[in-house]
Amino acid sequence: MTEQDLRVGLVGAGKMGADHARRLHERVSNAKLVAIGDPDLDRAKRAASGIEGCRTHGDPAEVISTSDVDAVVLATPGATHEPLLLAAIERGIPVLCEKPLTPDSKSALRVVEAEQAAGRRLVQVGFMRRFDPEYRELKRLLDAGDFGRALLMHCAHRNPSTPPGFTDEMMVFDSAVHEFDTTRWLLDEEIAAITVRHPRRSATAPEGLRDPKLITIESTGGVVVDVELFVNCGFGYQVRCEAVCERGTALVGGSAGMFSHTEGRWGGDVTKDFRDRFMQAFDLEFQRWVHAARGGGIDGASAWDGYAAAAVCEAGLAALADDCRTEVDMIAKPDFYSTS
Amino acid sequence: MTEQDLRVGLVGAGKMGADHARRLHERVSNAKLVAIGDPDLDRAKRAASGIEGCRTHGDPAEVISTSDVDAVVLATPGATHEPLLLAAIERGIPVLCEKPLTPDSKSALRVVEAEQAAGRRLVQVGFMRRFDPEYRELKRLLDAGDFGRALLMHCAHRNPSTPPGFTDEMMVFDSAVHEFDTTRWLLDEEIAAITVRHPRRSATAPEGLRDPKLITIESTGGVVVDVELFVNCGFGYQVRCEAVCERGTALVGGSAGMFSHTEGRWGGDVTKDFRDRFMQAFDLEFQRWVHAARGGGIDGASAWDGYAAAAVCEAGLAALADDCRTEVDMIAKPDFYSTS
Amino acid sequence: MTEQDLRVGLVGAGKMGADHARRLHERVSNAKLVAIGDPDLDRAKRAASGIEGCRTHGDPAEVISTSDVDAVVLATPGATHEPLLLAAIERGIPVLCEKPLTPDSKSALRVVEAEQAAGRRLVQVGFMRRFDPEYRELKRLLDAGDFGRALLMHCAHRNPSTPPGFTDEMMVFDSAVHEFDTTRWLLDEEIAAITVRHPRRSATAPEGLRDPKLITIESTGGVVVDVELFVNCGFGYQVRCEAVCERGTALVGGSAGMFSHTEGRWGGDVTKDFRDRFMQAFDLEFQRWVHAARGGGIDGASAWDGYAAAAVCEAGLAALADDCRTEVDMIAKPDFYSTS
Amino acid sequence: MTEQDLRVGLVGAGKMGADHARRLHERVSNAKLVAIGDPDLDRAKRAASGIEGCRTHGDPAEVISTSDVDAVVLATPGATHEPLLLAAIERGIPVLCEKPLTPDSKSALRVVEAEQAAGRRLVQVGFMRRFDPEYRELKRLLDAGDFGRALLMHCAHRNPSTPPGFTDEMMVFDSAVHEFDTTRWLLDEEIAAITVRHPRRSATAPEGLRDPKLITIESTGGVVVDVELFVNCGFGYQVRCEAVCERGTALVGGSAGMFSHTEGRWGGDVTKDFRDRFMQAFDLEFQRWVHAARGGGIDGASAWDGYAAAAVCEAGLAALADDCRTEVDMIAKPDFYSTS
Repeated sequence: MTEQDLRVGLVGAGKMGADHARRLHERVSNAKLVAIGDPDLDRAKRAASGIEGCRTHGDPAEVISTSDVDAVVLATPGATHEPLLLAAIERGIPVLCEKPLTPDSKSALRVVEAEQAAGRRLVQVGFMRRFDPEYRELKRLLDAGDFGRALLMHCAHRNPSTPPGFTDEMMVFDSAVHEFDTTRWLLDEEIAAITVRHPRRSATAPEGLRDPKLITIESTGGVVVDVELFVNCGFGYQVRCEAVCERGTALVGGSAGMFSHTEGRWGGDVTKDFRDRFMQAFDLEFQRWVHAARGGGIDGASAWDGYAAAAVCEAGLAALADDCRTEVDMIAKPDFYSTS
Repeated sequence: MTEQDLRVGLVGAGKMGADHARRLHERVSNAKLVAIGDPDLDRAKRAASGIEGCRTHGDPAEVISTSDVDAVVLATPGATHEPLLLAAIERGIPVLCEKPLTPDSKSALRVVEAEQAAGRRLVQVGFMRRFDPEYRELKRLLDAGDFGRALLMHCAHRNPSTPPGFTDEMMVFDSAVHEFDTTRWLLDEEIAAITVRHPRRSATAPEGLRDPKLITIESTGGVVVDVELFVNCGFGYQVRCEAVCERGTALVGGSAGMFSHTEGRWGGDVTKDFRDRFMQAFDLEFQRWVHAARGGGIDGASAWDGYAAAAVCEAGLAALADDCRTEVDMIAKPDFYSTS
Repeated sequence: MTEQDLRVGLVGAGKMGADHARRLHERVSNAKLVAIGDPDLDRAKRAASGIEGCRTHGDPAEVISTSDVDAVVLATPGATHEPLLLAAIERGIPVLCEKPLTPDSKSALRVVEAEQAAGRRLVQVGFMRRFDPEYRELKRLLDAGDFGRALLMHCAHRNPSTPPGFTDEMMVFDSAVHEFDTTRWLLDEEIAAITVRHPRRSATAPEGLRDPKLITIESTGGVVVDVELFVNCGFGYQVRCEAVCERGTALVGGSAGMFSHTEGRWGGDVTKDFRDRFMQAFDLEFQRWVHAARGGGIDGASAWDGYAAAAVCEAGLAALADDCRTEVDMIAKPDFYSTS
Repeated sequence: MTEQDLRVGLVGAGKMGADHARRLHERVSNAKLVAIGDPDLDRAKRAASGIEGCRTHGDPAEVISTSDVDAVVLATPGATHEPLLLAAIERGIPVLCEKPLTPDSKSALRVVEAEQAAGRRLVQVGFMRRFDPEYRELKRLLDAGDFGRALLMHCAHRNPSTPPGFTDEMMVFDSAVHEFDTTRWLLDEEIAAITVRHPRRSATAPEGLRDPKLITIESTGGVVVDVELFVNCGFGYQVRCEAVCERGTALVGGSAGMFSHTEGRWGGDVTKDFRDRFMQAFDLEFQRWVHAARGGGIDGASAWDGYAAAAVCEAGLAALADDCRTEVDMIAKPDFYSTS
């Protein structure tokens, strides 16, 4: 590992990218943000403002090709990822890629294959929940087998409301995908099948959106996971996961924080959005990635995890259309990804 | 309403019957336990011991036919209920019948029809959760529509362990039946369909029992309810229900009671069994039934509710066998039962 | 013990008395309310309405002297208690006396002495918290010594608001007296000294009332108990007690009940008043008292407990005036009261 | 503000110092640890191992006097602080000084005066709780006045056990001092008086230590704060603070984290020590200090806060000896510190 600060290039200066620019500049150690690329050059400049020595590019590809960039953070829309990832792999530099890896499993597989051809895991997918302290505690418990094997998991994923244009498909690809990844990671098993059910629509759902949904996924080892997706619940952002094991249950994402009594009620505030809820997870994810990237590697969800998530999403899409149980179609896990 | 104490006859002096004898004698106002019938006369005598003026019968039917019995509590196995219920209906006296009403929907329907022929609702089924203060609070909330309409419910029903001989069918008929009833009652809707899923078996499950199960039921109005049934969970008895509504969620059966810190842990005790958890509900059920029975009526789940529960159980049995979604087959609700 | 129903006379038909009339008539087993006495005869009649066979008296003393009254519930103001208690003791019938026993320790001592002269404990003081299931669980824990000896207790006693005319003295005599009794009962020790402190007044306190107060009491065994009294807290009625022991802490009265998420908040409702919070405790107190009274005795706080509470209140009054630590002045406990 | 990384010198390589070395190297952005000084040079070398470009000194003063050190973290025992602080002030570089500022108020005042003479606030005291997200939320609530003014605060400060040689005085100077600081900070008032009470000793307390203690402090504005100090509670490390305001209460430090059911209990783990509990607070404190120090200033408790804490500790010492209420003796706050 080099002892120099990691010189990071950021591709994408939208809301998420701009957040990551601040994160890298203000809260992440051993890293230096040296370049920001965005087709909207003004946006790139705004994100770079106040960060000494950080240049901007209107062509994202330039960020990846420049020799003084040691590693890349990718925060553009998923549809743009494939060529950028392939370029980074070709240059042999680590990439932290916001999910999704790519928009579909076929293109994701091409990234996986390119990475294998390059002989080194360089691509990390930004599934930040893996860095949340509570999720990590649950992972530790399941790995240690303190309560025996997991049998069931109950998840809830609630957003206060959706932006205009949010669709049923996005509920699977953008929201449920996090549960697909945490399930795979917590259980260390792939997902074999998925079912989508639609209860009656909420009056709070915008026209055309079937909200809420109850998704059930089954792991290859027979664990059944139910996921409530309710993206117009109104009251806040909440992500909850309860693992039911043979000798006990464990819940993460329960109510937390300052506790008050006032106006006839006891309780506390629900977090408002995912940034609020997973701020610490994002920070830890970046800090650990920087440490790993300085050694040329990654420390988090791999390209394989990105491919697997895409495959489950595609099965989810079929399940959504047919209202029936759909098996996940994916290749066998290459040895290349066999050790976590 | 008469101002005299209600003279109650108890049929069945097993564990539950003996509990009810103590309850009636020691904690229920305006009632007097005057007779206990059980084919095992010794058992009846033990249950009656210390209760002045309480006689015993070896023939349960005698309890119902004796003129000084104003009302009957039925605590024998479900298979014996039908003739006893019909006898009580014929005599025109109120009955509080431990669930199930009868073992199947066909016989339950005969009770429903007999009651209609008699022209008066006399039969109450002992679904005690309807009297639990938290469940009542949830019912109030749903009826008032404070959070809009219910869309989903998440339930968990956990027992520490099962007695010898416990079967998959009993998980539906004896355990899940409570969730069937509370769902119908809370939503004021019938159940239209049921699905049973089997995650991998717990190592704590006795041979032959597929424990846990994940049951999903759908109400006629489109509410989807998932029910975790885990009857060998080891850690205690726990019943939980979370209603997800359009503008909020409400949970009953969460962790409660004395809260401690000791030996590196914060928390409290899980209740040990259903008597412990629903003691107050049973007491309230009996007290309210006595008040209603003094006026010649009932105050709780009706014979119709008993029939509907049986119909859902039968669909559950089919779903269990076929591992697929099964629609509930039941007659339309007679006007006789239209007002709650 | 007789197997007949206990014939109860109720003295006092105000708010509390009328509640007890309903309780005795509707929810308490093995008892029959036969007479209600109140100087305001109309009020007595209203309380007796609908209770068959319950007569009314304008002279409370008549209730106690009538031969068909087996036991008495006393719900008049404390200033009227002494002669009524002495009359009941003279007749040798059990009395359940709402707190306070009498308004001061001197008169309380006369009751104690009369009871000793009569040779039998007949007087029970209505400290209902002793019957609250959570407080009983805490008592069990302390008695068993699971966590070692108690060292400290932290209490809070909060009311939404005070009725007109509520005074500093009433905060001690009517509110804090409950903490004095529960402390004595939980620890099985007397209270040796009391200190009253005044933080800055709440803007919600009516003129002339120094609200909140922080009272500290010390047991004879050296346990220090702090009590927050805040009787215009606005948000509800809340009573909390945390015992800090050598190997753990235990809290009762924490937030409980249905749990919801709505409008940006998680949590539940605070109980509105003491009837709401201690309803179950009152019911259990009465039921157990009826069982004991049928055997001629009591089952709860004794006349001695009433005397001790009065002695602590008087020390509290002195502490209030002087803003300093005041020792409690009381006689040694007579052997007559030595066994609980 | 310079855009260069802050070159930090660390003085003191004990347990805390070594932790800070890791923190600065691995988790804090915009800083570079360039020197570690400790009279035990081996210890300094161990703390510096793996940190490229970090030299070591056997003379702590050298760290401060070297021109390439832009700011200093002081983690030596309090008795050594004064000359080191004065040296840093003289050089005009920011210092983050672990508490206490100095061992007594007289020496603390000399630091305060030196800083005023230098004309710039350079000294920050490491009261890390001010950076805990929950405490900050409470501070925000109190500042905004959402619940009206604070009237009372209830605090508990519990440690599993004490190291050998821990004394009554250390319970005040090392433990309670955190509550003194958070009280001053939360209320934005000074502390006027302090009382110490001793309940009976815990059997878990080592000989000679009067554990637990109940300390009461009063703010200049009349807020009364009770603090349970129990440093051999056995079950874990726990810090709790409940502010009681005119229209509501707010608690921080309540039970949090993963929630489980197992072995008859529901609940979670108590944190084991202060590093575990306040890890995030330490990280945030350092990150914010680095940002402030790059601009030549501080962002946290000032030298004045260190002096005030020392003055309260001294009053606490007197209160400890005399078992009586002691007023805090301190100078009026200089204008120099008047803006926070």
